[in-house]
This record gives sequence, structure tokens and C-alpha cells, in this order.
Amino acid sequence: HLMSQLADILQSRSWSGLGLQLPPYSMDTRGNAGGGQGAQSPRQPDQLFPLLSESKTAFVIHDLSNHGENISDLFRSSLQYYNAYQGDKYHENNNTLGFINLSTSENKLCIDLMTKRLSRSDMNCTEDALLQYPDWRGQPFLWEEVARFLTYYCKAPAPLDPENVVVLNGCCSVFCALAMVLCDAGVKVFLIPTPFYSGLALTSRLYTKIELFFIHLDSELTGENTRPFQLTVDKLEQGLHEARLKRKKVRGLVLINPQNPLGDVYSRDSLMEYLEFAKRHKLHVILDEIYMLSVFDKSITFHSVLRMESLPDPNRTHVIWGTSKDFGISGFRFGTLYTHSKEVAAAVSSFGCLHGISGTTQHNLCRLLQDRDWIDKMYLPTNHSRLQEAHKYIADKLKALKIPFLNHGSGLYIWINLKKYLDPCTFENELVLHHRFLDNKVVLSCGKSYMCKEPGWFRLVFAETILHLDPLAMHWFCEALQEQKKELV
Amino acid sequence: HLMSQLADILQSRSWSGLGLQLPPYSMDTRGNAGGGQGAQSPRQPDQLFPLLSESKTAFVIHDLSNHGENISDLFRSSLQYYNAYQGDKYHENNNTLGFINLSTSENKLCIDLMTKRLSRSDMNCTEDALLQYPDWRGQPFLWEEVARFLTYYCKAPAPLDPENVVVLNGCCSVFCALAMVLCDAGVKVFLIPTPFYSGLALTSRLYTKIELFFIHLDSELTGENTRPFQLTVDKLEQGLHEARLKRKKVRGLVLINPQNPLGDVYSRDSLMEYLEFAKRHKLHVILDEIYMLSVFDKSITFHSVLRMESLPDPNRTHVIWGTSKDFGISGFRFGTLYTHSKEVAAAVSSFGCLHGISGTTQHNLCRLLQDRDWIDKMYLPTNHSRLQEAHKYIADKLKALKIPFLNHGSGLYIWINLKKYLDPCTFENELVLHHRFLDNKVVLSCGKSYMCKEPGWFRLVFAETILHLDPLAMHWFCEALQEQKKELV
Repeated sequence: HLMSQLADILQSRSWSGLGLQLPPYSMDTRGNAGGGQGAQSPRQPDQLFPLLSESKTAFVIHDLSNHGENISDLFRSSLQYYNAYQGDKYHENNNTLGFINLSTSENKLCIDLMTKRLSRSDMNCTEDALLQYPDWRGQPFLWEEVARFLTYYCKAPAPLDPENVVVLNGCCSVFCALAMVLCDAGVKVFLIPTPFYSGLALTSRLYTKIELFFIHLDSELTGENTRPFQLTVDKLEQGLHEARLKRKKVRGLVLINPQNPLGDVYSRDSLMEYLEFAKRHKLHVILDEIYMLSVFDKSITFHSVLRMESLPDPNRTHVIWGTSKDFGISGFRFGTLYTHSKEVAAAVSSFGCLHGISGTTQHNLCRLLQDRDWIDKMYLPTNHSRLQEAHKYIADKLKALKIPFLNHGSGLYIWINLKKYLDPCTFENELVLHHRFLDNKVVLSCGKSYMCKEPGWFRLVFAETILHLDPLAMHWFCEALQEQKKELV
Repeated sequence: HLMSQLADILQSRSWSGLGLQLPPYSMDTRGNAGGGQGAQSPRQPDQLFPLLSESKTAFVIHDLSNHGENISDLFRSSLQYYNAYQGDKYHENNNTLGFINLSTSENKLCIDLMTKRLSRSDMNCTEDALLQYPDWRGQPFLWEEVARFLTYYCKAPAPLDPENVVVLNGCCSVFCALAMVLCDAGVKVFLIPTPFYSGLALTSRLYTKIELFFIHLDSELTGENTRPFQLTVDKLEQGLHEARLKRKKVRGLVLINPQNPLGDVYSRDSLMEYLEFAKRHKLHVILDEIYMLSVFDKSITFHSVLRMESLPDPNRTHVIWGTSKDFGISGFRFGTLYTHSKEVAAAVSSFGCLHGISGTTQHNLCRLLQDRDWIDKMYLPTNHSRLQEAHKYIADKLKALKIPFLNHGSGLYIWINLKKYLDPCTFENELVLHHRFLDNKVVLSCGKSYMCKEPGWFRLVFAETILHLDPLAMHWFCEALQEQKKELV
């Protein structure tokens, strides 16, 4: 989501040697740029997104801690994109010149079904217990339902234990608490293959100093790579070796499956190999399976680690899931942890006092998750066919434009290769193209914000209704590319 | 709330020189002790709450970080009380032998009004925007309403600026984020007078190492003290001096007003003196005003710092409020920050990605806060008269029992002096009495968990309906005291 944009800055500060300075977008921190939803601010296609450096001028008093200043800078510059969009959203009737957001990974294709479902009478509940202090691990009825839900949809060989579930307000909260209880900050690190969804990296910086050690995958097809950005055990071994050479104590491995931004779904065999690698080295594995029900290509089988008959190292295997992506309700702020380690579950649940969810929201989530009939017969089939359709629409457009992309059947996004629009192909020029899109009121995430080691890749979110309902949307995308091309010549 | 109990352990670990070892309650970590709500487990008044040391035996694998182990230990032992209560709650029909919770600071007196209000049709809203990613600072409509609400109820001399509001999921989240952006952990400290609500101390330990430096107040009436536990500027100056002697860099002062657990409401003049003290030393002041609308004695005027015509140091004055106490909806997980510093507001709002509230809950909170008619004509008058009545009921009982207490007209609790039941009057014996109450199925918070420097004080929550509806409740309280007295003789 919006955090993917933050990673530019994250990267340019302390995470990379690339030394890129992200030019801040010139507007106030609360996103009044566009003058609100109704503002018909004229497009200015010839003016490159303003490259000013005013982001710090708004504040004169410096009363923050060092950490507070770092965090504030980090978010302030990056939220400018997001606030620009929030303050001047495209709307087919009211604001046809507003920003089109192809950057935030939200599924807007089934919001009609969802609002209808959430309007049913079983959603209204104000029982006393919901209004009072909760169990910090979540309401018991919700962790019980989550266990049943995951047992069913992950095809677990035996019923999952509700005692091993922790419910918090979003997957980043789960990751942050989990990282905190598994890894002593400043001492130990987690391995993570790149490109990857960088919100994880960002949020873990807010409170902690948990370090991620990148295993940079590349797109080229060589002996080892039969697919672009392929993860192999050899690369994991090599990454671990490099980390150790740099005197890092590696504590675990983070995997996103289905992958974000690649859309890759790991095969059962690959997954098992990664888990066995982790076991050999006594590493924890954190699996972010937040897109597990967004595999819309019927020929692809998603294998949750919870489906394995026997896990190589169950007590060190931890699964994160939430409803933000698969149910398109990121605004609900719901994330959950399933771990076989009761010790880890107990430790993470302590963080519930900082990451709690309203009782009434927990009630509604429970009702939603337990409505299997609606999920199986109505929601999932509709969602998958709409995702499929939206994906096809974009894939066809990209083919027509001769833009290469990874053709996977999962997730809400497509990983596209715009290298031919960069000359030379550098991260500096990737950023120029990124701003060219913004000038054309199209928000796209660039590869650098996923710690991709190759410049020129972008993530385009296709689960956006207006994208394929209004021909203008892709038109602006194309316009930005044409402008960029003109400059190249 | 439940966290006040945690402070025993907090204290006994790293916060004090008292070296008290809290005996863990012998039950599993998920509170199956009482066998559920319906279990009629026989009272065993003669058996002191079991003093076993089994809390670590449940887990054999140790896969946590050092920090994870500390946190886990801290919460596990303490949650035993809470889980004991959760698993075996008193109920007037179903479980008359269950635990009566006079420890968790919840207002249950108006839950009938609240559930009725929350059942009205204006609470059902599933607009698209509520289901999607929020502004991390909270939904704009909510921070706008919070600004209006605080302007009105704090009697601010000029309308408060919505841009200075941050909305997070609970006041502990606000405190934690605020402490993080104001104070570099391990380097700088906050002063705080004791006894104080120790949840603040606990939650700030989950992610951060923010240190609180205690200014221990005492109950004796001497030249300086015209009231028990009186806070004076001299004591603040002395505390600052002591902290500096210990080479602590003091960054701020934390004040709770109305005070928890004392019930004190600071006069306008006292408040101004504290703020001027802070300004002299360039200290931030964090004001926790979460009980601001729970001043039920009409002769007392509550002065919010937001009411001041001119604050000595506005950019370093930060107010925390939430609906948990004043509206009795702790389960909603809503806390808010108001600060005149846009820099601080921006920095704290970055933490919204970890402390977000569901959009639908934000909608409901907004509806609630804007219903001034209901609040002013129905809710507040009823709440205040019920609080007054409940307070009087308990005060009369305590007088009959010749138990001294602080007689204030605010908050949900009463600070009682049970020193005469301790011989010698030590923290060890305070804990024995605490367990005596537990054996009689009465949960009470002891003074040590508020970092009180004098043993023998307890906090009794009177905003509990059953307490004054069922004569049995106070009967058990008395029984515990009689038993304790028998042992003394």
C-alpha cells in the first residue's frame, strides 16, 4: 500500500549505498494540494513534478527526539504523494482530473459485495463485553473463528489451535511485534529476498531497530534462474553467508507468499526447501500470506505452510494473514498471527494493549469470516473472476504497448518492466519517470521502493475499478510514457 | 485497568530496590482456572491464594529474543489475575461465586445508555472510504470532531485546530508514540509523581526503553502537605535535582489530571505552577486527561490545560484523552492527542500505521462525540449522578468499616488505606492482603502497582454495578479483611 512509496526514502537514508535523494513533493503535509476532491486542477503535462526541497521548512521549532525527527522526516516526505492523492482523488463524475492511484495495493473490485454484506443485520452488535476491555490477544470468539478459518482455507491437515492465534490491528502490527519478540534489535537480523513489500521494513523502524538483510534477486534468466527473480536455496545459503561475513547474526527469514510485488506463488517443493534451509540454520521463518485467497488463476495452487503435513521446524514457523487484501477491507485494520509456538503466541499477545481492535469490529470480522456460504459461493468466485478480468485487461494493454511484465495469476498488482523508457537505466531516471507519472496524475510504485536491485521496474495495481472502466486512466499512463520517450530521443 | 496489576512485576524487576518477588497465580496462561463463567468453584477462604512458582514451566522451547522473554514473563504472570477473573467472572444469576473485579478501571454504570445509543441507526455505516486505507492520523471527520469536542468540553478559549489532533487506538498507544518521538530511549527520562497509573510505564516498555523517574509523594500531612500525596513545585524541583544527580537527562514531566489512583483534580493555579516549572527547565509536559469528564462532584471544577488562555510553553504541552473512561467504552480502543506543536502531531501520526482504528469504529466514535444533545442532556448527567451514588455507597461502607480513604469527587476509583491490616506494614504484607482478597474472589489493585512508596494503600473501583447492587460483593471484601485481622491477632 502507501508504504511501498516510503521505501524510496527508507532506502535512500540508511539502507543502501545508492545515495538517492528523493525530491519532496511541494505541498503541505496534510495534502491540500489539489484543493479537495472537487478541485479541477488543470493538468500540466509539460511540467515535471516539482523537484523542490521544502519539506523541512514548515516547522521551525525542533522539539523532537532524534528518533522522532528521523521518523517524521521519513513519513513526511513520503506521505506527500499519498496526501496529494487523498486531497485530489480521481472521480468519474466529480473530479476527472484527479489522481489515479495505481500504487496502493487495495482491492476495490468487490466493494459492492462487501458493503452489502456488512450492511446485513448480523453486523450490528453492541453487547456489553464488546465495549469493555478485551483479552489483549483479541476476543476469544475471534481467535477461535480465525483458527477455524485458517484450518479450512489453508487446508490444514489437522484443526489449528485457537490458543496459537493472536489478533492485532493489521499485519504490520503483527510483523512488528513478532520481530520484536524474536530478534534483539541491533544484534540480529532477518534475511529477506528483494524485491519485497517494504512496508514491513518501514514499520519495523518506527519502534524497533530490527534490521533486514537483503537477498537481491534479479530478472535475468541464467542457469539458476528459470524464472525472473527466482528464489533458490542456493541464493538463501549465499545470502546467509554474506550476512555472516558482515558479522550479522541472522535470526530468521521473511517470506511473502504469494509474493508482493512479483505475484509469484511458491510451489510446495520450493517452500519445503526454504523451510528446510531455515531449519538447518535454526532460523525462524515469518511467512506473510496476506494474499493467500487472491490467487485468481485456477491453474495455480497456493500452498500455505499451514497445509504441510509436517513442518520441518514448527515452533519456528510463523504465519501472518489479514483481511485487508483478500477481502478488500484494509480500513478494518485486522491482522493475525498463527504460530505453533505457544511461547511466541504469548509473547506477541502482550503487544495487544498497543495494537488492539475495537470489540464491535472484532464481532463484525468474526461474522464475516464465519459466513462460509457467502465467501465460497458469492465472494470468492466473484472476486477471482473480477481479478482475472482486470488482470487480463491490463495485461492486454501492456502487451499492446510492448511493455514486458511478469505474468502471474495472484495478487492485486503486476510487476512491469519500463527499462526501455530509461536512458541510462538508473534509479535516478526511474525516479524521473515516477514523477512523470505523478505529473500526469498517475500514482505508481517504483522498483526502488521494493529494494529491487535493478532500476526500471514498477508495480501497477490493477484491482482498481476505474482503471478498466474508464479508458482515460490508461490513456494518462500512456501519455506519461510518450512524454518520457520524447525526452529520450 | 488490568495493567495496574502488571506494575507489581514491573516494579519487582527493574524499577525498584524493593526486590519483591510476585508469587504467580497457579493457573494456565489462558485463564481456564475457574472453568468458565458457569463454574461454581467453591470458595476456599482459609486457603491463601496459592503461592507457587510455576509460571515458567509451561514452555520448554526458548526461541524468543531477550526482550521477548522479558516481556513475556512480565505479562504472563500478571495476566494470570486478569485471566482468572475473565475465566470465572461473578454473575448475579449464573456465577455468584465468581471473581468480582474492583481492580480494572472501567465505568459500567452507564452501559445501558451506551448500548442503546450505539444501537441507533446512525451507527451503521459501511461507506467505501471507511473500508479502505485511512489517513494514518485518523479519518479527517474524526480529528475534526475531536477538535470541536475538546474545544467545547475543555472550554478552550479559541477553537482547537483539527490539524493538531492525532487519533490512535487507545491512550497507551498515544503515550507510547509520544514518548518515542519526544525522548531518546536510554538517554533521557520523564519525571512522574507517584502513585500513578502504571499502565503508562508498562506499555512504554513493550517497544521502547523510555525511562520514568519517580517523584514519590507521601500521605503524611506536614508543613508542605496540606493534602495527602500533594504535588508541589518544590517536589518537582527536588525530583529534577535528584534525577540530575543520578545523571539522568530529564526531557519531560507526565501528569495525570484528574489523578489516577488518587482522584485529585489539580487547581488552575497548581496546574499553572507545574507548567511554569516545566517551562523554566524546557521540559515537555504530557497531560493524561482521560478522566476529564468523570468529575462527578459539582463543587469541583476541572481545568484542562486546553482551557488556559495562554500556556507557558504551548509547543511542549501535549494532552491525551480518550473515550475509555468518560464514556465507559474501553473496548473501542480510542485515544487522541492534542498538541499545539504541528511537528509533534506529524511525528506521532506516523505511528498511525501501527495504531490504527477501523474506519467503521471511527465513524461511530464521531457520531457519538458529535451528539452533544445526548451527551449533555442524557449521558453526562446520568453518568455523574450514578458515579456520585456509587461513590457515596462505597464511602459510607468504608466509613462504617473505619477504613480511611481519600475523598475526592472524580474518577472511577477510591484510594483506600488498609495499613491497619498489615503488621508489620510492608509491601510483602500488602501482597499477602492482595492475595487474601483474591482468595475471596475480590480483585483489587495494591499500591505498589502504582509505585506508591508507602505500603498499605489499595485502589478500589466503585463504578461497578454489581458492587452496590449485590450486598455480597462488599461482604466478601469485608470477609477478606476479617480473615486478615484474625491472623494479625
